[in-house]
Amino acid sequence: MTNATGPTVPTDQAIAAVRPLPAGAAHLDRGGLLGGWQARNTAATLPHCIDQLDGHGNLDNLRRVTGDHDGGFAGYWFADTDVYKTLEAAWWDGGFAGFTADVAQLLEKAQDPDGYLVSYFQLEHRGRQWRELPSSHEMYSAGHLIQAGVAAARSAPRDPAAQQLLAVARRFADLLVHRFGPGGQDAIDGHPQVETALVELFRVTGHRPYLDLAARLVELRGHGLLGPESRFHTSYYYQDHVPVRAAAEVTGHAVRQVYLAAGAVDVAVETGDTELLAAAERLWESAVRAKTYLTGGQGSRHRDEAFGDPYELPPDRAYAETCAAIGSFHWAWRLLLATGKARYADEMERLLYNGIAAGAGLQGTAFFYSNPLQVRTGHDGSDEDAPGQRLAWYSCACCPPNLARLMASLHTYAATGGPDGLQLHLYTAGTFSAGGQRVRVETAYPWDGTVTVTVTEAAAGPWTLALRIPGWSTGARLTVEGAEVPVAAHDGYVSVTRTWRAGDRAELVLPMPARLVTAHPRVDAVRGTAAVTRGPLVHCLEHADLPAALDGVAFEDLRLDAGTPIDVVHNGHPIAPVALHARMLAPHDADGPLYRALDDAAPPATRGATVPMVPYYLWANREPGPMRVWLPLARQRR
Amino acid sequence: MTNATGPTVPTDQAIAAVRPLPAGAAHLDRGGLLGGWQARNTAATLPHCIDQLDGHGNLDNLRRVTGDHDGGFAGYWFADTDVYKTLEAAWWDGGFAGFTADVAQLLEKAQDPDGYLVSYFQLEHRGRQWRELPSSHEMYSAGHLIQAGVAAARSAPRDPAAQQLLAVARRFADLLVHRFGPGGQDAIDGHPQVETALVELFRVTGHRPYLDLAARLVELRGHGLLGPESRFHTSYYYQDHVPVRAAAEVTGHAVRQVYLAAGAVDVAVETGDTELLAAAERLWESAVRAKTYLTGGQGSRHRDEAFGDPYELPPDRAYAETCAAIGSFHWAWRLLLATGKARYADEMERLLYNGIAAGAGLQGTAFFYSNPLQVRTGHDGSDEDAPGQRLAWYSCACCPPNLARLMASLHTYAATGGPDGLQLHLYTAGTFSAGGQRVRVETAYPWDGTVTVTVTEAAAGPWTLALRIPGWSTGARLTVEGAEVPVAAHDGYVSVTRTWRAGDRAELVLPMPARLVTAHPRVDAVRGTAAVTRGPLVHCLEHADLPAALDGVAFEDLRLDAGTPIDVVHNGHPIAPVALHARMLAPHDADGPLYRALDDAAPPATRGATVPMVPYYLWANREPGPMRVWLPLARQRR
Repeated sequence: MTNATGPTVPTDQAIAAVRPLPAGAAHLDRGGLLGGWQARNTAATLPHCIDQLDGHGNLDNLRRVTGDHDGGFAGYWFADTDVYKTLEAAWWDGGFAGFTADVAQLLEKAQDPDGYLVSYFQLEHRGRQWRELPSSHEMYSAGHLIQAGVAAARSAPRDPAAQQLLAVARRFADLLVHRFGPGGQDAIDGHPQVETALVELFRVTGHRPYLDLAARLVELRGHGLLGPESRFHTSYYYQDHVPVRAAAEVTGHAVRQVYLAAGAVDVAVETGDTELLAAAERLWESAVRAKTYLTGGQGSRHRDEAFGDPYELPPDRAYAETCAAIGSFHWAWRLLLATGKARYADEMERLLYNGIAAGAGLQGTAFFYSNPLQVRTGHDGSDEDAPGQRLAWYSCACCPPNLARLMASLHTYAATGGPDGLQLHLYTAGTFSAGGQRVRVETAYPWDGTVTVTVTEAAAGPWTLALRIPGWSTGARLTVEGAEVPVAAHDGYVSVTRTWRAGDRAELVLPMPARLVTAHPRVDAVRGTAAVTRGPLVHCLEHADLPAALDGVAFEDLRLDAGTPIDVVHNGHPIAPVALHARMLAPHDADGPLYRALDDAAPPATRGATVPMVPYYLWANREPGPMRVWLPLARQRR
Repeated sequence: MTNATGPTVPTDQAIAAVRPLPAGAAHLDRGGLLGGWQARNTAATLPHCIDQLDGHGNLDNLRRVTGDHDGGFAGYWFADTDVYKTLEAAWWDGGFAGFTADVAQLLEKAQDPDGYLVSYFQLEHRGRQWRELPSSHEMYSAGHLIQAGVAAARSAPRDPAAQQLLAVARRFADLLVHRFGPGGQDAIDGHPQVETALVELFRVTGHRPYLDLAARLVELRGHGLLGPESRFHTSYYYQDHVPVRAAAEVTGHAVRQVYLAAGAVDVAVETGDTELLAAAERLWESAVRAKTYLTGGQGSRHRDEAFGDPYELPPDRAYAETCAAIGSFHWAWRLLLATGKARYADEMERLLYNGIAAGAGLQGTAFFYSNPLQVRTGHDGSDEDAPGQRLAWYSCACCPPNLARLMASLHTYAATGGPDGLQLHLYTAGTFSAGGQRVRVETAYPWDGTVTVTVTEAAAGPWTLALRIPGWSTGARLTVEGAEVPVAAHDGYVSVTRTWRAGDRAELVLPMPARLVTAHPRVDAVRGTAAVTRGPLVHCLEHADLPAALDGVAFEDLRLDAGTPIDVVHNGHPIAPVALHARMLAPHDADGPLYRALDDAAPPATRGATVPMVPYYLWANREPGPMRVWLPLARQRR
């Protein structure tokens, strides 16, 4: 059994191009952006989540099952999963011993003798137990419980509370195997999630029936088991319209789709099912080719929280749920481990710095559920799915604890390795080791593109240091011990194989100019616009940054002067040390009817000003106001 | 009491600039487009609706209440309203005596002694009666029953079945007055509709408490009576966030908003409440200024079936529910009657020929619920709210019978008049009379812009013939008895006052070139595109019309060559006698990544072909395929 850690640890028998680092092998400096986020998670987000679980009755729901609390059921029928995700986060974090011990005890006490544990159905709804699988989220709930158990087992295998939680998780998993395993009921959950959890539980325990059940659930999907279509949900919504291995494109509820795909990868690598792995890669390609926002966000529709048609990517109504971005990150990570292709690490990076990071506010205690790329003046933000500001919590609070568990495990995603060497995927200050070698990474990434890797321990003999050359970069340069090394990336990585000695340094320089980006012409929703990016960061224009020179101009009337270079300004600001300064023009007069003859000339620009653009993930941390990523061009291209 | 007819007949005391024609005073020739639609309604749509009510259990729900049927409740809790709308249509049509008599009897038998009549709650849900007003649609159901009763009373006042139905409607209305009138419960229905129905019932009966209740319901809205906001519905959804007379813009569920606004106009004109009337005009202006599609459709979001933010008008995800278009038509008609301003008739025309007409297929037996302005290749049409083809019926079947009742009463909207003269609003072949004068209108409108009006009966002395000069037209010319009359439109009408004699002819010529239309630059979703219109008709590009020269080109890659004039081709086709021929260009190579550098030049066009564009309302009558109204421009304007 491998001693690696993190939320995805394939067995030694699995298909794997690269492997997670061992426990204790990765540390992020809290002075780096990623390490800072992780520290904020410990200090703010996780305590906040624990408070909210108390305040919103999630823990009390379980206490009602044990007879330790009176009162009505609070929240959604899947409210337990907020507890499980917070619990998983706490185990990865390692610093919430009281909470993890208390909850393990509570769960053990609340669990039915047969292993069942979903408080909503254990309370007033016994008769509905297992009868409403399209919507009940029972296996989904089991899955999050299992993932918390896996986190406990990997983080603190000898901690009694971890063992207690793992045992609870196994009992529920055993019940699933009994009911739904080979020979049992042919059934699937409306919300995929348990598939990946079961594979992970197999990885931790070596108990094959968990893997077999996961494989079975993946296979059973796509045959209409979730029943006839209704006005509210079609089989596309559940990804039950076509088997995973035959699916041509991502569709339906985005979180369900990406969770399912991640589970399919887990099953594929552990069962050696290269056809299923290829299907998961094909699905991923379909998503990135035509159904993913510039921020990595996914889900073009509020209705059904769903992927749209190909190239349907409205910035204003982007759903881009934080959970979908996290699920997409998990999916890409699994594909990276299986294939070693940098495109998957590129996607993780894009997600992390944009679609995921935007989900949390500066203090780490307010969150977005959906992450639009545009908010208009006069936006009706009364809908909790489309507020103009982050909220402290949600009635459907899936996203905040999902962020907490990702951030608590963030160090496990930055690098992979083994006896043959180390592969660096996400650049941030920290130390990483595997197989006797250890490196220290120093960088101000993503504010600066210089990454210095110093070998601090070296195993005897040659080994390979592999550095990702991001897909967004051009002109990357690498020196090793001061000597230039040609950057000929293979599968997106430049590899240096040599007998490294402690103290050896490699320096990678990734130039980071501001870039103007446009979308495929089929993306109708952003035609005639450009976005501004730098390195992995997408920037945005916020109302709060408009200078006095543009007073009185409607935000929606501003146009980007693409002919004026965008300045990269290092301003030393502690939160956003780099701003991009773009010249925006304002029309003379933007009044006029909603529809008019094409030959009515657009009003000419008469005013202009330079406006700083902050990274997208930092939006909505000041006074409320409109925002946009895609800026209409003052001069549209022919 | 006035002897006028139609679905809106203000009393003689009401604020009114123009007045509906008397019963029997308007006839549409079935050879004209509008008359043809009306004939199709009689021959196909209405019988189809009646069949569907039987097939989908709507009538059986009522028969269960009377004990004449066994089985479970079918459909939505407001399923009775499909019966009422079909019934209203049958009364306006006048040709379904068996159905109208049977249903009147059924309803009388199903009605509770106290007047209550909502089969869903009368069956298994007595305990929930009147307890769930935000969602129960009980007053909404009463409203549609009342409107059917009003149609019966106006169409056939001496018919016993009409009297029976009116009596049933009055009993339910009396119950509403008792429960919710002055001194009763302060409460409103989540779905406005009963307001306009109650005013109409007052108009038919002269019973003032109906008007008082309607006024009260309009006033009570906007004070949060519908309760705390939920994840699913905010007070904006119900228009309960601000009183109608203080509302600055249309918002929330589009059908509810337009029904509410129509009711507010009815209350305002009957109570002389000019402030409320001004508020309704202001709301209407907010809709047309920034929240209405080129087709007249309204509702930019599938989520909540709602208006969007200002200028949020995505063509692909346009909800533009057929019922919202019909409600908007009703609202505009009321404002036209109150003010006499042609802008309201312009809007009725735009709705009728585009957003409404698209709701029904050629045969009149298949329908759209939502009316997008774009469908992509690869569209997932599995959701009944967004199919690529019309469906014979819907689980929420509000739209088809709504179309039936509008079409059955269509003749009543074309003209208004009285002793002082006639006002022609919608041009179509037919005869119209009022106050002793009668005219015959001959025209091939909207295929041709020549409208000939012949006086066939003339009252003694001078009277005024007023002809609408559509907002879309330029260069209109009018001759009376061969002599040119200067077209100096006042409030959108050109008026000719003279002592008309039988045989006198007026000829209005409205030039109808093809026009390229663009949207306000704030409409992000259609930037860099143009639409093609002619007269009141919006045209669209359909995949079925692509010539062989464009084989192999993805529909989404086609670009409009705006530099080549669009030909108006009179082809004699019985269904679409005029097509607009536009030159479309295809890029050499449309592959490429979803996001790319702005300076990567767009691929040049290497192929082109002339493609006919059919009127939008005719789309999806051939094989399924992509469609678009807004065409990306090959050369975007600077």
